[in-house]
Amino acid sequence: MRKLFFAVLLSALIIAEFIFSQDKSYYYHETAKKVVTEALNKSKGYEYLKELCEIGPRLAGSKNSLKAIDWAVNKFKEIGVDTVWLQPVMVNSWERGDIETAAIIGSNNNPIYELSVASLGNSVGTDNDGISAEVLEVHNFEELKLLSEEAKSKIIFFNRPFDNTLINTFEAYGKAVDQRIFGAAEAAKVGGIGVLVRSVTSLYDNVPHVGTMIYADSVKQIPAAALGTIDADYLSGQLKKNPNLKIKMTLSCRSIPDQKSYNVIAEIRGIEKPEEVIVVGGHFDSWDKGDGAHDDGAPTLQTLEILDLIKRLNLQPKRTIRCIFFMNEENGSEGAVEYAKFAESENSTHIAAIESDRGAFTPRGFYVTTDSTRLSKLQSWLPFLDHALIEWIKPGGSGADISKIKICGALMGYVPDVQRYFDVHHSDNDVFETVNSREMEFGSAAMTILAFLLSEEGI
Amino acid sequence: MRKLFFAVLLSALIIAEFIFSQDKSYYYHETAKKVVTEALNKSKGYEYLKELCEIGPRLAGSKNSLKAIDWAVNKFKEIGVDTVWLQPVMVNSWERGDIETAAIIGSNNNPIYELSVASLGNSVGTDNDGISAEVLEVHNFEELKLLSEEAKSKIIFFNRPFDNTLINTFEAYGKAVDQRIFGAAEAAKVGGIGVLVRSVTSLYDNVPHVGTMIYADSVKQIPAAALGTIDADYLSGQLKKNPNLKIKMTLSCRSIPDQKSYNVIAEIRGIEKPEEVIVVGGHFDSWDKGDGAHDDGAPTLQTLEILDLIKRLNLQPKRTIRCIFFMNEENGSEGAVEYAKFAESENSTHIAAIESDRGAFTPRGFYVTTDSTRLSKLQSWLPFLDHALIEWIKPGGSGADISKIKICGALMGYVPDVQRYFDVHHSDNDVFETVNSREMEFGSAAMTILAFLLSEEGI
Repeated sequence: MRKLFFAVLLSALIIAEFIFSQDKSYYYHETAKKVVTEALNKSKGYEYLKELCEIGPRLAGSKNSLKAIDWAVNKFKEIGVDTVWLQPVMVNSWERGDIETAAIIGSNNNPIYELSVASLGNSVGTDNDGISAEVLEVHNFEELKLLSEEAKSKIIFFNRPFDNTLINTFEAYGKAVDQRIFGAAEAAKVGGIGVLVRSVTSLYDNVPHVGTMIYADSVKQIPAAALGTIDADYLSGQLKKNPNLKIKMTLSCRSIPDQKSYNVIAEIRGIEKPEEVIVVGGHFDSWDKGDGAHDDGAPTLQTLEILDLIKRLNLQPKRTIRCIFFMNEENGSEGAVEYAKFAESENSTHIAAIESDRGAFTPRGFYVTTDSTRLSKLQSWLPFLDHALIEWIKPGGSGADISKIKICGALMGYVPDVQRYFDVHHSDNDVFETVNSREMEFGSAAMTILAFLLSEEGI
Repeated sequence: MRKLFFAVLLSALIIAEFIFSQDKSYYYHETAKKVVTEALNKSKGYEYLKELCEIGPRLAGSKNSLKAIDWAVNKFKEIGVDTVWLQPVMVNSWERGDIETAAIIGSNNNPIYELSVASLGNSVGTDNDGISAEVLEVHNFEELKLLSEEAKSKIIFFNRPFDNTLINTFEAYGKAVDQRIFGAAEAAKVGGIGVLVRSVTSLYDNVPHVGTMIYADSVKQIPAAALGTIDADYLSGQLKKNPNLKIKMTLSCRSIPDQKSYNVIAEIRGIEKPEEVIVVGGHFDSWDKGDGAHDDGAPTLQTLEILDLIKRLNLQPKRTIRCIFFMNEENGSEGAVEYAKFAESENSTHIAAIESDRGAFTPRGFYVTTDSTRLSKLQSWLPFLDHALIEWIKPGGSGADISKIKICGALMGYVPDVQRYFDVHHSDNDVFETVNSREMEFGSAAMTILAFLLSEEGI
């Protein structure tokens, strides 16, 4: 009799659980649909992006970046989050200055062909007269070492192209970007006096694509600039005709003392487990070319729109959802380090973090760094995420900013379609007009659904 | 002993089959990778598109469309296909003429605000003086019927927007396009004398988006034009202030007698079963706005690139792969009907057909109309198609042209990401510059892999 009682009780519990889970599944589907509809209907994130891009690019430490930080604080207040605060952080700073020219010069030292160039971040400038020298074209550091005897007193021209045959544009970027980051250090080691680097881009045009570079402690700091891909091919062709041609390069860029800046941190506190935190965010700084629309303006505003959508739909997350605009991912990552320190000291648990830093294109999936149990749990939510065009969740790298957080249940990176990303990345091409409203809003919706499920279900 | 012999033989056969299928799987993976690499590396389809767009748009029956047909024949010859031929077809024809204006007019009949309009395909023109009338704004045919007493002698303004909250842009298009297609017929039934239709587009700008419209036999043919979305909202606002405002509309468009045109048909014959045919194709005509780059220039050239990639990689398909550039999908579909007739009469079997007519954006999947056995077989190839970013194959509509073929094992529609498609569709926005090389080439590669697998394995 007692056995029967327990059997009946157990059956009742299983049925209740089944009904509950059916109800919950229905609720999550309906919520996901509402999120997508609301995002597409109002396009608020896209409107916010227009306002942000009107401020201009947001190089860390610049006046513009501080204006943008003010704008962001006001926007979070307008949305009605529970708290918004500024976390101070000193950031590595650099200025482009007004002059960045390089020209092929004739025997009288007059320019005969102006190249399309832009100084690389952290590069030293030249003096006012610039540097004039012959050019050594190489394609990788091994070739440079082999030709080291020819390198002395020359401008080293790194000309290995972005490999457009690779399926993943981020892989192609990773395979070419060493020239930009370490080219000047390697060139200086063999006596080079300046560096030109073929732009690391999937596009064949003449817009230089910039980005950070790093000197080596032991060697001279020499000036370095990115070169448009069309002019890189042109220069290469001219060098075949005349290996002794000379270039004159003048750059007025310079490093300046570290500047005070801020991470912007806003949150909606969980109503059941406020001490369990889900981080969402991107980096708010950009390079000083274009508007920093895709890198990382729109993706960062997608994470602001997570809080916005939650407020607009009057969802009440059980756990805290915290949005962070990290400062200076591009040129020092001090914001990420500062937040990670705070996370360690804080009396809360980071159960998951989602970073948005691959452009604001149509959603494809999420990469995640976690254990297999959590991965399975996340993957079980794919039917809800499907409303926002998410096809998969698989193991992979999350993002430069959140990966500094030491203890976190799951580090996730939002992955949109990335075929067009390196057309615009770090260049004058990266403007508001290249962002599509629907593509951006689907990303906001996808991350909102995921953040909401994390807040309801934990991980 | 005999049993043992058969057991050993059977085991040997199973092992051989296993080794063979392992080998085949390896071969298909390697071939798929080669196809993707070759497509991305050379971007030939994208180059061809540039040439095609330089000819201009390809309205069926127009001189431009005949120039483009010549260009296509030469391109197929250049590629080195086994045969290329022209299938004659008479096509419904219409001309825009030089004049398409509509303006809000003042009490003296002078224009006070010019609206951004474009005549709809098949519309009759007005006489030289145009038509001047008050305006009745409605949002659907039911509302028009309710207001039928007010409609007499007015210009009927259909202003139901494209629903951007829908996940699938094609669904949003389908839900708005009745106004464009049947608006003039419905307006004429209640005594309207002209029609303005809010452009069926996901974009909020002032570019009119055109397309076909159909009159009803029983009622008067009245002139009809598309209106830019910004001006549609402006006009709606003005009507609220002044319900008696008048518009003057002048259109010089007209239908002309059916013109002689052609389907372009090219093929690589199968080396084992040439009588089994896999059709690939799109429609070569376009509207006369923009370049017809996404609709359907690039998608059609992706199917040309299937043959091109097969030749360049020296693949020898077992079954015949036939590429068809269908004529006049936009305004009569006579090309599709003509080919379907030919297919029925021909001494061959159509085992599968793939249509490309949803823009040339990054691949997502394939829709297919077939039975469950064939569907499973197609889905078993997803690991090979994954190299070209194909995520799924699922039941769904294929395309307007191939669906006319009466007997075919599987009708398939290539599905790229379609978030941006209706930004450009049927408008001056649909130009070469909106097509991204990588996005287009991935589509070419995806369809090449699928066509090749069909040619190897049958279905």
